Parts: sequence; structure tokens; C-alpha cells
Amino acid sequence: MSGPMSGRLAVVGLGPGDARQLTPEAAEVLAAADALYGYGPYLARVPPRAGQVRHASDNREEGARAAAALRHAAAGASAALVSGGDPGVFAMAAAVCGAIDMGPAEWRSIELVIVPGITAMLAVAARIGAPLGHDFCALSLSDNLKPWELIERRLDAAAAAGFVLALYNPVSRARPWQLAAAFDRLRRQLPAQTPVVFGRAVSRPDESIAVTTLGAADPALADMATLVIVGSSETRVIPRPGLAPLVYTPRAASGASA
Amino acid sequence: MSGPMSGRLAVVGLGPGDARQLTPEAAEVLAAADALYGYGPYLARVPPRAGQVRHASDNREEGARAAAALRHAAAGASAALVSGGDPGVFAMAAAVCGAIDMGPAEWRSIELVIVPGITAMLAVAARIGAPLGHDFCALSLSDNLKPWELIERRLDAAAAAGFVLALYNPVSRARPWQLAAAFDRLRRQLPAQTPVVFGRAVSRPDESIAVTTLGAADPALADMATLVIVGSSETRVIPRPGLAPLVYTPRAASGASA
Repeated sequence: MSGPMSGRLAVVGLGPGDARQLTPEAAEVLAAADALYGYGPYLARVPPRAGQVRHASDNREEGARAAAALRHAAAGASAALVSGGDPGVFAMAAAVCGAIDMGPAEWRSIELVIVPGITAMLAVAARIGAPLGHDFCALSLSDNLKPWELIERRLDAAAAAGFVLALYNPVSRARPWQLAAAFDRLRRQLPAQTPVVFGRAVSRPDESIAVTTLGAADPALADMATLVIVGSSETRVIPRPGLAPLVYTPRAASGASA
Repeated sequence: MSGPMSGRLAVVGLGPGDARQLTPEAAEVLAAADALYGYGPYLARVPPRAGQVRHASDNREEGARAAAALRHAAAGASAALVSGGDPGVFAMAAAVCGAIDMGPAEWRSIELVIVPGITAMLAVAARIGAPLGHDFCALSLSDNLKPWELIERRLDAAAAAGFVLALYNPVSRARPWQLAAAFDRLRRQLPAQTPVVFGRAVSRPDESIAVTTLGAADPALADMATLVIVGSSETRVIPRPGLAPLVYTPRAASGASA
């Protein structure tokens, strides 16, 4: 049953970083909230507003952060939880839903609003051409929440079936070897000349993009701010005189890609 | 070689429809263009500006539309080509890259800017919870540009490996049977109770969302404006008293999902 105190929780996607890629909807919802919750560097992107309380937390405290925001909303507040990129892609929306699923019954009466944002793979793809122009998979390389063997099975299945791969969370301090292992795994199935894109901090001042091949891809090019795209056998690179190359996957597939 | 007349082409994502989900970057780029190209109903979403020429074209003339915009840019104009959702996901960015790849050499000197947008799967997912909260694939069911057998192979591979599926272009007047065939194919691998979401025209006035199961999914619920999400065996539905249910895929996977 809905209690009279039930408030509202918005889970808001901030996009990749550039304020011009934050939607007006997200800006409105953030401005209207009584309290903001989130990872400190994401909260720092939101313009301050008098009377609005901020609760910054560490990157790895997702469950606790979701629960704190839900408790506040259940007490009648209008809370907003910020997420980098899109909250629904390897981010806070699933953590909030999981907390509601497992939490006290009254959390199911909270008005939950999820505001989408530009997720990293869309920002990186746009910067380099259209590598996601055909069928693709988004896969997190973090084995904190699933066994590495499952990640390998998914890499194999996606590459064999001709999907382009967008690899989230390719590396962290606690996970230094996973991206190299993923490249090795993919080299069993995909040609060495398959295009690979490293997109780091896209849309932010320290943005960098590198285009290479699966044969030459150096995992050391990736850090926690990097999104890696591995093409299919149909992904192409267009050299351009005096301009960065374009990487794209044609809309038409030959059927020979698998 | 770069000719002195080379202009600029922006390929701009309009998002799912609600103007509050159009990024400020997209609005700026659209306002700055000399000429707009695109499918008529998408162009109709862009506020008119005096002196700006509009070239509306039919939905299926993607190659011709890309070439027309590139010719205009090559002649020195600042052209913008609009795309629903995100231009990089089953939309105009790959068509433009393909035209540059196959077209006259001078098109490689055009300044190409791709502006990302909220693609349909992110908008639908946000409306219903977090069905894309774990690994997922985006797959177009249109067999205009690839053989149906390849689509079946990808459905099999993605479902067997435990990916959630976002199905673009589930149906059109010319492709009436594909979604039913895809559901039948997926029923071989996934439990009947697997959650399925039909998200139609999300963020627009005629929005509708339906949550069902793979066992009960009726392909007739989808039309050209629909994005279909098929969960994995780990996707869950949270009933809520007096509110729509939430559908989410937990961030943690058991490894038993494949």
C-alpha cells in the first residue's frame, strides 16, 4: 500500500560529460530535486542550487547509494540520483530496481522516474563515424558481478555471430588483465585487421580517440574512462587526407560474416 | 585533396521525439545549418528558422538523401541531416559513411560532425525500469539489408549467451512476419516467462508501453514505431501496487544464464 509520505526518486543520466550533451529533461529534473545523490565527480557536474542537499559517495558503493536515495524518497522527499552516461546501461537504474525488488514493501510506492542520457558507446561512435551502424552488443568486462568464464562465452558468441562489440569497464585498478584477455579471446575468431576504437573521456577536455586493429590493439591504451569498440569482420576504415579516419559498419551485411 | 569549397555536414540525432530529450548540442547544430535534410516527419520536429532550406525525403531513400547532403556540403554549404534517435544506431550515420566510402574523393575532405542522441532502446528502457542493466545486444529485424538466416543465427547466439535483446525495426508493411518468427526462434532457447517489453512512440503523445512474457508476446502489438526488448533468463519484473511494474536485469549474473 502507498503510504502518505511516499516521495519521488529520479535516476538521471548526465551523458558523457559535455554539458551540451545533457538533455533539457535531465537539467530540469536535477534542478527540481530536494536532494542529489551520486558519485562525487558526477555530482560535481551539476550546477549548484541553494537549498539543495548533496550526498556524494564512492564509486563502488552503488547498492548503499541506491538505498540511501530510496529511504529519502520514501520519507517524502524528491530525490535525484545521478549517473554518468545513461542510467540504464551498466549504471544506477538497475541498482535502484534491485534495491526496490529486495527492499521494504513501501519502496514500491515511490514514484520512480528514470531520465535517459547519452551513453558512452553512442558518444564514442559519433566521434569516429558509425561503428555501431549494424547489429552490436554492449558487454561489461567487469568480473566483479559475473564470472570471467561467462564474459568469455559472450565474447565468443558475439564475435562468431558477427556483432560489433562495445566493451564497457575495460579496465580498473582491481581488474588489470581483463581487456588483454578479451582481445586474446577475440583474436581467435576475428581477423587481425578488425578495426578497434579506444574512446577515452569523449566530450570532456581530456578526450582522446585512437583507431587501431585487433592485431595491434594495446590494452594499455585503456583506463577507467575508456570505452572500447571492436568491429565485426564487416567494419571498415576510411582514410581521409588531413582528417581523422572514419570507422563504420555498413548497414548491409553479406551473411558471410558469421 | 581538400578543395577550397569543402563545407560541413552534421548528422544529428533528434532523440525519441520529446523536445526535452533533444540535446543542446543538437539544437545548436541544427540552428546553425544552412540546409536541413531528412525524412519529413523528423524534419517537422525541428523549429523553423528564416533562411534555412529544408529538403524532406521519403523514409526509404537513405542513400540518396546522404548523397544529396554530401553534395551540398562539398559545394561549401553547412548542411545537417537529421536522424531519429541516435544517428549511429540503425540510422543515417552509417549511410553517410558508406556514401563517403564509395563516393567521389572530395567527399573525404568534408568536415563531418555526428551529434549523438537518445536512441529508442534507452528511452524505452528508462520508461520501464532497467531491462538493459546487464549485457545486451541491439539487433535490427529488417531483412532488407541482410539475409533472414543471419538474423536467426544472431538471435540464437545472443539468447544462448544470456544477452538481453533490443529489437529495432520489428515490423513494417513490407515485413509483416519477421517479429513473429523471431519470437518463435527465441522460444526455443528462453523460458516462456522471459519478460518482453513493447515500447511504442516513447516520449511522444501517442506513447504506449506493454509488458508481457515471451510465451504470451503478441507480434501484433508492434508497429513501425515500436522497439521490443526481450529479457534474458535473469530479467525480473517487480509488481507495484497502483503503479506500472518495473522490468530490470540485475547487474550481477549467476553464470548459469547461458
